[in-house]
Amino acid sequence: MPVESFETVNADRLKAFCVAVFEKMGVTPGDARVTADNLVMADLRGIASHGVARLPRYYYGLKDGVMIPRPEIRTIRETPVSAVIDAGAGLGQPVSKEAMEKAIAKARKTGIGLVAVRNSNHYGIAGYYSMMTLEWDMIGLSLTNSAPMVLPTFSRKALFGTNPISVAVPAGRERPFVLDMATSVVPRGKLEVYERKEMDMPPGWASDENGESALNPGLVLQNILHRLGGGLFPLGGPGEDYSGHKGYGLAFLVEIFSALLAGAAFADLTYPGNVSGKPKPSKIGHFFAAMKIEIFRDMDEFKEDMDTLIVKLKECPKVRGHDRVYIHGEKEYEQAAKHMMEGIPLHTKVVESLKEIAAELGMEYTL
Amino acid sequence: MPVESFETVNADRLKAFCVAVFEKMGVTPGDARVTADNLVMADLRGIASHGVARLPRYYYGLKDGVMIPRPEIRTIRETPVSAVIDAGAGLGQPVSKEAMEKAIAKARKTGIGLVAVRNSNHYGIAGYYSMMTLEWDMIGLSLTNSAPMVLPTFSRKALFGTNPISVAVPAGRERPFVLDMATSVVPRGKLEVYERKEMDMPPGWASDENGESALNPGLVLQNILHRLGGGLFPLGGPGEDYSGHKGYGLAFLVEIFSALLAGAAFADLTYPGNVSGKPKPSKIGHFFAAMKIEIFRDMDEFKEDMDTLIVKLKECPKVRGHDRVYIHGEKEYEQAAKHMMEGIPLHTKVVESLKEIAAELGMEYTL
Repeated sequence: MPVESFETVNADRLKAFCVAVFEKMGVTPGDARVTADNLVMADLRGIASHGVARLPRYYYGLKDGVMIPRPEIRTIRETPVSAVIDAGAGLGQPVSKEAMEKAIAKARKTGIGLVAVRNSNHYGIAGYYSMMTLEWDMIGLSLTNSAPMVLPTFSRKALFGTNPISVAVPAGRERPFVLDMATSVVPRGKLEVYERKEMDMPPGWASDENGESALNPGLVLQNILHRLGGGLFPLGGPGEDYSGHKGYGLAFLVEIFSALLAGAAFADLTYPGNVSGKPKPSKIGHFFAAMKIEIFRDMDEFKEDMDTLIVKLKECPKVRGHDRVYIHGEKEYEQAAKHMMEGIPLHTKVVESLKEIAAELGMEYTL
Repeated sequence: MPVESFETVNADRLKAFCVAVFEKMGVTPGDARVTADNLVMADLRGIASHGVARLPRYYYGLKDGVMIPRPEIRTIRETPVSAVIDAGAGLGQPVSKEAMEKAIAKARKTGIGLVAVRNSNHYGIAGYYSMMTLEWDMIGLSLTNSAPMVLPTFSRKALFGTNPISVAVPAGRERPFVLDMATSVVPRGKLEVYERKEMDMPPGWASDENGESALNPGLVLQNILHRLGGGLFPLGGPGEDYSGHKGYGLAFLVEIFSALLAGAAFADLTYPGNVSGKPKPSKIGHFFAAMKIEIFRDMDEFKEDMDTLIVKLKECPKVRGHDRVYIHGEKEYEQAAKHMMEGIPLHTKVVESLKEIAAELGMEYTL
């Protein structure tokens, strides 16, 4: 196993660096700040695969014209409870934040707001948007489709993205429930970790081009990139014995909400540039919802029940070898507190990629 | 393996028998018809675990006072987009149908309707309600909590029910997408099938009282019934290697929506009669949503995209040994067509239980 090394950087300085990169690429200061905040929040929360490790993707996306730095964002359909926004092929983060703000504003008036976004790009961590509703005592939902890499049950061609589901629900004294899950068994980032460590994967995570369980992460990643067949198994794994068709169903559902409701590209029609080799906008879509809890129940009663349920979960007797039952989002809150204090550990390969961008842009890299 | 035998019965006659039983127990003709329709629809669709095999549960529930035959149903909170209904401890089916009708009526006016139900009982198959929206060109959502039998990750005590998620989405020429999935790896009914056949289960479906994988379905079913520890693993299986925490998160989410929003009993507070041994109302809750697709997109465009996506899925190259990629709900539509024509195969044990009920009620059993 190769020795891996990390450099620890301060979150605020890392964010400032990302803001500077985006501004250099023509993004407005406000949009640059939102996008940088989203990336660094992923690193803070321990989701390194969606953190600044992805900055090159955005940098080259802006450089190659896949992402438009100052897009024309238009609301193309609207009711008191809903809206559809065309993102103008801009960065996914600023339009998504705007969409969730619109959903929250609608929910404040009517109880619920639903906003679908089309013609967008990668929006970072899904939980960034669902969590925006928490301070409003609302439940937040955030969904997105993405490049095809997940296999429908019994198919050996990937047709869905890792299509995440994020739902945030406030509690009282306890921390909120923040679900943020890919609908595949594991996200692509996990394969990249195994590849870097030169380790075999466990069977049942991903498949070769014939749809059979693959152990070599590099092979699967190459096949995904060039759409050669195979990919990640949906949650529940291959076939139906462990209900892989349920994960496939959830991915399908996220595709319908994020893409088909909005009129975005879906399935293998997303990221057409990955097929032609010529950079093109990804044309993916997102879906956001905000729902006021008080249309159902007094907030103090709801929060008390949330706290009771969370305490019940924490007090469950544990299986051998484990001493905690986690609430969704809890590990991430703890990681964020630690990384705020101690700094964010960046893989040296990630640091190198940041330095490369800095050099291309004639910026100083002084993190 | 014991030889199992089946008797084939006509769906309409089976339904009429169930209606007669419910009416004898004091249920109104209208409510009896809805409940019978829900049970027989499960049998038609091949979900025998939720069909008339569960009639004794309702019969004894009504007999013992767990379920109130003519409950007082009250709407206790309401907005133009939402309502909360107290089911008065009646049968779950009639109030759930009424709740979804209310959601649809709201969605016709505002674009969306959300209805939470509390103080209810088992509502049968979740898909029965989500599918009600299809003829209105709406997306339907149906959720319910249930008796605790699913393990949170790293816990050896079950705290959630099999908490199903059903979502129905209309298509154009193609059949609708109808997801109807328990958030556990397998539903309890699957263990009952293995027990009847005296077969060991595959590892990773369910656990013994220590939270370790169990192979004996009878042991697990007894432990669930008497709440002795262990139970079903959440979708994704034990631990986190195959993302069991995601299934646990989905079960958690369904619990929040079905029970905490409505003010219903949750986790191990449901079905208190199972603990005391004295029959008591289960006090569970449900959640229904109906959403008009046209608030986002013209219906013909949406349906065309659904058809395109479904055809793409069906045309995927298959893994060895399989010749179809299924759309969710497709198997059930085919089963229903077959069972309408050829009759429903009822296990002789189920037939015996129906005859027993008929005898107790002084009815003729002539199916």
